[in-house]
Amino acid sequence: MALVGKVVVAQGGGPTAVINQSLAGVVLESRKFTQVTSVYGAIHGVRGIINEDFLDLTQETTHNLEQVAITPSSALLSTRDKPDVKYCQEIFRVLKAHDVRYFFYIGGNDSADTVNIVNEQAEQSNYEFRAIHIPKTIDNDLTMNDHTPGYGSAARFVAQAFIGANLDNRALPGVYIAIIMGRHAGFLTAASSIARKYPDDGPHLIYLPERPFDMEKFLVDVKKNCDQFGRCVVAASEGIQDAQGTPILTKSLETLEKDAHGNVQLSGTGALGDLLADVVRQRLKIKRVRADTFGYLQRSFFGCVSDVDQHEAREVGEKAAQFAIWHNLDGSITIQRTGDYSVDYRLVPLPEVAGKTRHMPDEFINPEGNHVTDAFRYYCRPLMGSGLQSAQRLRAPRVSKILAPGQ
Amino acid sequence: MALVGKVVVAQGGGPTAVINQSLAGVVLESRKFTQVTSVYGAIHGVRGIINEDFLDLTQETTHNLEQVAITPSSALLSTRDKPDVKYCQEIFRVLKAHDVRYFFYIGGNDSADTVNIVNEQAEQSNYEFRAIHIPKTIDNDLTMNDHTPGYGSAARFVAQAFIGANLDNRALPGVYIAIIMGRHAGFLTAASSIARKYPDDGPHLIYLPERPFDMEKFLVDVKKNCDQFGRCVVAASEGIQDAQGTPILTKSLETLEKDAHGNVQLSGTGALGDLLADVVRQRLKIKRVRADTFGYLQRSFFGCVSDVDQHEAREVGEKAAQFAIWHNLDGSITIQRTGDYSVDYRLVPLPEVAGKTRHMPDEFINPEGNHVTDAFRYYCRPLMGSGLQSAQRLRAPRVSKILAPGQ
Repeated sequence: MALVGKVVVAQGGGPTAVINQSLAGVVLESRKFTQVTSVYGAIHGVRGIINEDFLDLTQETTHNLEQVAITPSSALLSTRDKPDVKYCQEIFRVLKAHDVRYFFYIGGNDSADTVNIVNEQAEQSNYEFRAIHIPKTIDNDLTMNDHTPGYGSAARFVAQAFIGANLDNRALPGVYIAIIMGRHAGFLTAASSIARKYPDDGPHLIYLPERPFDMEKFLVDVKKNCDQFGRCVVAASEGIQDAQGTPILTKSLETLEKDAHGNVQLSGTGALGDLLADVVRQRLKIKRVRADTFGYLQRSFFGCVSDVDQHEAREVGEKAAQFAIWHNLDGSITIQRTGDYSVDYRLVPLPEVAGKTRHMPDEFINPEGNHVTDAFRYYCRPLMGSGLQSAQRLRAPRVSKILAPGQ
Repeated sequence: MALVGKVVVAQGGGPTAVINQSLAGVVLESRKFTQVTSVYGAIHGVRGIINEDFLDLTQETTHNLEQVAITPSSALLSTRDKPDVKYCQEIFRVLKAHDVRYFFYIGGNDSADTVNIVNEQAEQSNYEFRAIHIPKTIDNDLTMNDHTPGYGSAARFVAQAFIGANLDNRALPGVYIAIIMGRHAGFLTAASSIARKYPDDGPHLIYLPERPFDMEKFLVDVKKNCDQFGRCVVAASEGIQDAQGTPILTKSLETLEKDAHGNVQLSGTGALGDLLADVVRQRLKIKRVRADTFGYLQRSFFGCVSDVDQHEAREVGEKAAQFAIWHNLDGSITIQRTGDYSVDYRLVPLPEVAGKTRHMPDEFINPEGNHVTDAFRYYCRPLMGSGLQSAQRLRAPRVSKILAPGQ
């Protein structure tokens, strides 16, 4: 017999360009089922559930849902709260009070963990309840998934940024360093490699959290590229760490705070890029060294989106509603690659995703640990979607010199 | 009688998203004239002329020129060289040796100055010669122009970034500060205002180089917005300065270098944003404070362009060729607004643009000096081109609370 009751959907963690596609997928699909009495959206993620802050999305127009779907960042607003068992008991208490029978949480591995604990509470209380985690993260670091919704669009932003940064650096040569999000997984930083078209294009060097970062080796790498190309474009993950596992950013902050006698706290986001730029400037005596930290632009820039990512984000939302309401199942939705390029969605047990982090596999990283392989580029490119154009150079022949012939 | 000889075109200063449209405009239009024997492109701006580094663009295919036109950043590569009289004499010597009779330099006010001096050299030598400056700058700071090619696309990038940053900040509230290019003119920073749609949208505060920046007033402004909206999004120009005209960035660097006993040089680009974020964090005791420095992304991002800007950049190149080759005139091409929205191009004497900087007019800045007026928004919007979509929010009604009614 069909499980009659309400649906609650919420969004957690950092926003993405397509997280509202998943929201629209859940809401529009859930509203088709007669056993669903209402579809609620919790404001600010799990915190909104605790506070009974719900929107009645049953009364949202389909047109507006479609407009919201193409708007980046969490339309239901988000939270960084990571619920413990007590917090999850409170979530469950509110859901039960509102006769909620279906719970969908769009988020990363922490959100999967929350869904898992809430689901356990329901089981222990013999309360008929379905809970599904819907994947979302620009970091692409969820286990059991070929990739995650949000990654393709962020990857596209990073590639487009590097196409431009490479052209800029070619026009006015020097060393350019960009810091990219991804504290533990290098997938987003690696996406910079898609920017390369001509053999001398940047990024010439890519540093990932999956390989130890050695400052001396970094300087040798930069010098080698400057000698060869007269310039060097570097992509580095914010999470790069030394051989002992200490993040380079943490090390630099310690140094700076110590040197500053507590007067200056350098906990802003530009610190790692500035540090690497300073080292290159001082040690290699290169004058033009610039560092950019992509920061929040890469996850919320309006108008840079992968259509493939959009469609998949919509479908994981739809599938979640179908698995829970039609098939009476709990779990985490995952994306499986079934062709070149095609995907399908599989429901896996929540503990297989909850709290776990996936890293770049070895075959995606070059042996030197300072770039990616063609296998990664082959993996990544379809996720960025269609319509990504490439830069074009002049191909006209050189003119012979008159005043200084032969030079 | 028609002046028979070669054309040289070059690109100077910082790249823009549409600078190659102007290049294509000059080249394609010049190639139509029979008195033009060849069209050369100088590599790396005026430095390429000195070194006789020319490409023969007469032999470039039209298709490839069109592909290059839609590629951002200077396809002929650029230079930061600011030629003095001696340098300009050398430029003139090379141009004469190659029988160049038409010189087009795409750049900012420094480039206009170079064109002016080279032209004076030609006049003094009684060498028949036409020289035209073609405007380009994301800073929008050229005198005599309603606006400049390159600005519309960079402004669009800034607006799209702020649409996203505002949504991100709304989902996970706190203080967000973004530093935008424009050392002396605030036009690009002001473009962030186009991101606002709903009354509580950011940017809530906009700080420009045209008004003195007072740290205490800044803290009051931020607190006021946090009290009202629970969050605050700030746009600040990299060139903000105190009442004495000292850039805030310079002041912060001095402090940092002094405190660090010379061990740490903080000359990277993230410093100003980090400084402002630190002050807000410490003085206002706000936990979530983030700073982004848009850096090179805003001038070279691939795939974010204003079609209006593209078309105008093309036309200033075409008009330059027409004024010089058809009408035998020297000068600087300017853009004049003739309707809502339409433009025409006028040639003005080089000294009226050379070396001069235009600032935001008073009527574009609010009396408090911390935001822009509707007059600016009316001025700026058409420059960003067509197809700029807006963010959409959920409009569903709130659900009544059951466990904590009335709260």
